[in-house]
Order: sequence, then C-alpha cells, then structure tokens
Amino acid sequence: MSPPIITFLSDYGLADDFVGVCHAVIAGICPEARVIDLVHWVPRGNVRAGAVILRGALPYLPVGVHLCVVDPGVGSSRRGVALRAADGRMLVGPDNGLLSLAGARAGGVVEAVDIGRSPFALSPISATFHGRDVFAPVAARLAAGAAVSDAGAPFDPRELVALDLPRARVVDGVLVAHVLHIDRFGNVGLDVDEPSFEVGAALEVTAASGRLERVRYVRTFTDAGSGELMLYEDSYRRLAVAVNQGDAAARLDLNVDDELRIQLP
Amino acid sequence: MSPPIITFLSDYGLADDFVGVCHAVIAGICPEARVIDLVHWVPRGNVRAGAVILRGALPYLPVGVHLCVVDPGVGSSRRGVALRAADGRMLVGPDNGLLSLAGARAGGVVEAVDIGRSPFALSPISATFHGRDVFAPVAARLAAGAAVSDAGAPFDPRELVALDLPRARVVDGVLVAHVLHIDRFGNVGLDVDEPSFEVGAALEVTAASGRLERVRYVRTFTDAGSGELMLYEDSYRRLAVAVNQGDAAARLDLNVDDELRIQLP
Amino acid sequence: MSPPIITFLSDYGLADDFVGVCHAVIAGICPEARVIDLVHWVPRGNVRAGAVILRGALPYLPVGVHLCVVDPGVGSSRRGVALRAADGRMLVGPDNGLLSLAGARAGGVVEAVDIGRSPFALSPISATFHGRDVFAPVAARLAAGAAVSDAGAPFDPRELVALDLPRARVVDGVLVAHVLHIDRFGNVGLDVDEPSFEVGAALEVTAASGRLERVRYVRTFTDAGSGELMLYEDSYRRLAVAVNQGDAAARLDLNVDDELRIQLP
Repeated sequence: MSPPIITFLSDYGLADDFVGVCHAVIAGICPEARVIDLVHWVPRGNVRAGAVILRGALPYLPVGVHLCVVDPGVGSSRRGVALRAADGRMLVGPDNGLLSLAGARAGGVVEAVDIGRSPFALSPISATFHGRDVFAPVAARLAAGAAVSDAGAPFDPRELVALDLPRARVVDGVLVAHVLHIDRFGNVGLDVDEPSFEVGAALEVTAASGRLERVRYVRTFTDAGSGELMLYEDSYRRLAVAVNQGDAAARLDLNVDDELRIQLP
Repeated sequence: MSPPIITFLSDYGLADDFVGVCHAVIAGICPEARVIDLVHWVPRGNVRAGAVILRGALPYLPVGVHLCVVDPGVGSSRRGVALRAADGRMLVGPDNGLLSLAGARAGGVVEAVDIGRSPFALSPISATFHGRDVFAPVAARLAAGAAVSDAGAPFDPRELVALDLPRARVVDGVLVAHVLHIDRFGNVGLDVDEPSFEVGAALEVTAASGRLERVRYVRTFTDAGSGELMLYEDSYRRLAVAVNQGDAAARLDLNVDDELRIQLP
Repeated sequence: MSPPIITFLSDYGLADDFVGVCHAVIAGICPEARVIDLVHWVPRGNVRAGAVILRGALPYLPVGVHLCVVDPGVGSSRRGVALRAADGRMLVGPDNGLLSLAGARAGGVVEAVDIGRSPFALSPISATFHGRDVFAPVAARLAAGAAVSDAGAPFDPRELVALDLPRARVVDGVLVAHVLHIDRFGNVGLDVDEPSFEVGAALEVTAASGRLERVRYVRTFTDAGSGELMLYEDSYRRLAVAVNQGDAAARLDLNVDDELRIQLP
C-alpha cells in the first residue's frame, strides 16, 4: 500500500529551521507519511504567487493532503482552514486566498472547517508560527486517516476568501495579458492558457513601462538565438515570455500583475 | 512500526552536494531511516547559532538521532562525539559546543563516546569532510539500532565543551538582554524566556549602537502597523524584536550577542 | 527489503517548484522509492559542473537510478537517454555529456536507450520541462523495476556525447593543473587526483591572471592560519586550493577550466 502523501508549499525559505520543524512535527504524528516539498521560497507574504504556483502544480501532485503556508496575517482573525475538494484532495492552510485557485482546479471545495481551535493542533498555539502549531499537525492527522469534519468547526465553503486575478482580454486586435508568475530565471508566465499562435509568428509586445519589442513565437529555448526575446507555451501550457539564456522580467521591467500588450498578427 | 528518525542540521548549505552525499551515505547504511533536514544554512562555522537553533527546535523533534555538523575545526584535534541524553535522544557531531545546549535541554548527557576512530566510520576518513565520513555513518548505525557504547571510546560527559552564553539581567530598572538569534527575516530572538510584559505596554529599547526607539509589546505581527518596531513572545517563547514587514536586525543594527537594553515600565 | 533509491541532481534550484513537481511525479509512479536530492543548485546550464559533481559523489551513492537534469538544449534534437552501467547503476538525463563522467566511473555504459518517445513519459510532453515529463517518470519506472530496454529505443553507447576536459601535465618541473570545480565556499578542486606532496611542503602557485603566491601543502583547514592560502587533498582525494576561512577562487581570480601552475619543489 502506498504511503499517504503530504505536499508542502510555504514562504518560510530554507535559511531557518521553520520547514524542518514542520517536517519533524509531521513525522511525530504520522511517521508513515511521505512529505514532498513543493517549494518554500514563495516570495515572503505573497499569497497570490503561492496560489498560482499551487494551481499550476496540482495536476502533477498525487491526491493527498496539500499543506500550504503563506500567512502574513498569522495570529490575526483570519481563519485557518482544512478543506476537502470534489476530487478527494485535502487542502490545509490560512484562508486568505492561498488555497482558492487550487480548490477550484480540484473541482471545487465541498467541505470546509475552521481549524483555529482544532483538536489536532499542538498546545499551546503560538501567535506567530501556525505552520508548526496548527497547519502541520492538522495535515499530519488527515494524512493518518482523520476526517476533515473532525479537524475543526464546519462552515459554508462559499465564505472562503477568493483571489481576484486580472483577466486577459482582446481589445482592437491587441491581446492585453497580465503577468501571472515570474520564475527565478526571469521567465514570465501570462494569464493566457493554451495559446494558439503559429510557431514562427512575428509579434510585437508592449510592456507596462511603454517598452516595445519585436518577438517571435517559438516552441522552445533553443529555437531562439542567445539573448533573443521569445514568446512560447510554457510547461504549464500558458503563454510566456522569456529571453534565451537571459531574464525577460528584467529586460521588459515586468512585475506580477503588470499588463503586457501583444499586437495580434 | 515507525521508521527510525535522524534529524540533520549543518552549515553545509544546499549549493553543493555535501548534504546530498551525507543523505546517500545514510541511505546506504540504514535505508529505513527517515531523515529530516532541520536546516543547512546555519551561518558558516557559527557553532553558537547552530547550538541555539537545535535547542529551540528540540521539543518538536521526535526522539531519535540528531546529526549536527558545524565544524570549523574539522581535521584538528577537536573530538567527534556520539552522546546519549537522559531522555533517550542521541546526538552526533563535533565536540565544540554545538551539541551542548541541546544536551542540557534533553535532560543532560548520560553517555559520551569519542568517534574519531569509530568502527562505524567510512574508510579512509578524509581530513575535511567528517560529515560524510564519520558523523553521517555513525548516525546511521545508531538509527539502525547500534548502541552508543559501540560507536567509539567512552569518556566522561563532564569533559564536553560547553558554550558560554551571555545572560540577561535587570540593572536599575533596565532589562539588559542579548541577541541570541537572528532569522532570515531579521527577527531578533533575545535571551529572555517567557516574557511577562503586558500586551500593549509601551517600552523603550536602546541598542548597542546607542540607538533608542519606542516600541510596543504586542501579541503578533498584525497587531503592529506596517514598518512598526514591535516586542513580542516568539514561537520559541522567547522575547523578540521585529519590524512588521521589515527587518529589525538591520533597523537596530543588531548582531548576535549584542546587548539590547529595555527600560522597564 | 530496502526501498529503491533515486538520486536527483539538477540546475533547477529550489526557488521554484520544478524540483518539487518532479518529486511528486516520482511519488505518483513509484511511491516506495526513496529520492535523495544530491544538489539542485548546479550553475544554470553548466553541464560540465553537473558532470564533475556527479562523478565525485558517485562512490558514495547506493546503486540505484541517478536522475540528472542540466539541460540547456531541452526541446531541441539533443537526445534524452536512460543508461545502464557495468556496475548496475542506471543513469537518466539528457545526452549532452552530463552523464558521461559518471558512466565511465561506473565501469562504462553497457546499454543505452533514447527516451525521446519513451512509453514511460507523461503525455503530452512539454517542450521545456523534460525533467517532469520525461526524465522523472522514466527514472521512477526504472526504480519500480522496469528494464532499461523497455524505456526507449536502443542505440550504441559509443554514440553518447562525451565531455572534453583539460588534463593536468608536468612541464619543466611545473605542474600545470586546471580548475575542475569551485564550491560555494570558494574552495577550488583541481584535476590532480591523490596528490603526493609532503605535508608542510612550501610551494609556489601562479594563477591564469599571472598572480603568484607562496602556499603550503597542509592536511586540513586548521593547519593553516586564518586567511592563509593552502594546498591540500580535498574530500574527493583531489588536489585543491583553499583559503582558511576565506575564498580561494576570489583571491586567485580563478574560474572553471583556468590553469593553475604549481612550481614543484
């Protein structure tokens, strides 16, 4: 029989022992769980980036418990939650929008409980480290077979905090896209799924800064010259901008949510 | 039955393969062990920081083998040791003070062996990488069930190197605390356990640099304004200084061991 | 029975979810595999550095599947391969030289298949993330017991891309070595195995920049003064240059492949 899976995403970084201590808490409660570190360098407090990364990765994650902590409001009145989605996945984390995109991609949230006073939490609960004291132990108990309904107080999933993302649109032959995500290489993911440009098409992009560049739509990095700006479908099947062996976000001065206007051919 | 636990703390960083190779050595000797990476970015050679982190994390770590390598004296005459503590934990690492705070918190060291010529070590032992050649294999053999007494030559635990930490004290109505630890967010842990200030109290702090600031004692980050300096009880139940969404160590120009004077109300 | 081992080396870094998603894909296919992260901060696209690190670590890795992804040519016509070596190890990654040094150290490659259209790959295969779509799933299937011959189309191992490394030589009493690897501390590994200098010998080194320094051959860091340049046998039994508590690569302005001339006594 396969071990239960817990995936773990956070903005804790690896410079301190925050992630390690959460692993230790999980191992103490559910020693048989296999914990997969999805990423821990989500930019500090950037709920939106965490939500986008989790949604993109979700189809590749085994069904299990998805522990997520990007929690700038820790200790405030924001809710901590455990959720069950239609496809069987369980999500644990703060109710600040972090889980909302993944919840939708998992078929919608069908059960929600507030774990602020969860019987599964450690005692005492610190004011500043709910990853260790609340979220990790709840995730571990769910991985060990506990029911979401036993993890806290039920509430209507429609009350969950949602993220408000910009939406790409076409205006007068211009595709107005937005920066959804920037990876560490400076590759820029846009909010356009499964783009339908023809490989080789010559396009013009205008960044929010007013900077205009000509760019080819290509299939992969080696189809562009070294230092060439390129449009392509990235591995999450999103339209993306990159510079072969370079940094597109820096070149176009792009930040998350910035507009990028693409003149359609 | 639960797998044996090895926790692993070091200053090796993750930029090189040092940590990965230690994991591989452990897997070759004790494949069933579950290895938990506590943290590997302890500042290079900073024995003191490693010791403080390990002590703080210890109550959250399952009883097992705690492998710790911050070892600026590797290859010198400093001892490598395996220790058994009163609460059943085993500690493996260099005898330079790194294990001393955790040993005390675990109820005291009741058995100590010198593993410089351990039968469990790899052969040959390199002069510069005892993490791989001595400490990891000894930890793995202990996790696999070997006795500490079989890991090396016994000596009196009272000979172990101890750390000499400054101690907070109250002088003329001023609490003279010291910086115990700074995390990657610039939050500053002080050497004052379970502080008893009243939430909301207005206090005055003076840093070693002479810089004086007014500061409120709060419960959590969201109780302070953005950029506000705050005193609080951190998740290790220590008095701490932070800046909400900022870096308190930089703001007060604080380094480890620096004094911070707090005018009591 | 021991779980199957997969070691994983890449240049993906840990700032994004690339490594985490590969772990998730493996866990979905071969839940019982134990995945050891060797290192993920190989400099971006530096095939040569990845190959040298893997070769050095190999003797410490349990026999298993060695998943390696440094793949600047992803999506191009470069081959993706799975290899079986004489000693039973399996290597999975791009055929760009990354696997070549390890293949030789493992006794030579005795079987090679092209996994570009592997039945084990995910579908669809993206143009830019073969780590997730091809290499990780193939590695997982091999760990689960599949045969290399079932992973793709066979070809002659002699067609594999080889790396062309410089070779140390002695000319007129001068040992002309080259920089093989620089670790994050700035310690410089040279292409001279098992050096035979006498401990304490006084030598003269001349860097490519023309900079000349006197240096002692020592056994370990603590044998040198703080800030002293030193020659020594590193933990991979290679001749190496370091600065005790400092950065030798910066001090001598050395980069990978640079010559370092050592005047023999």
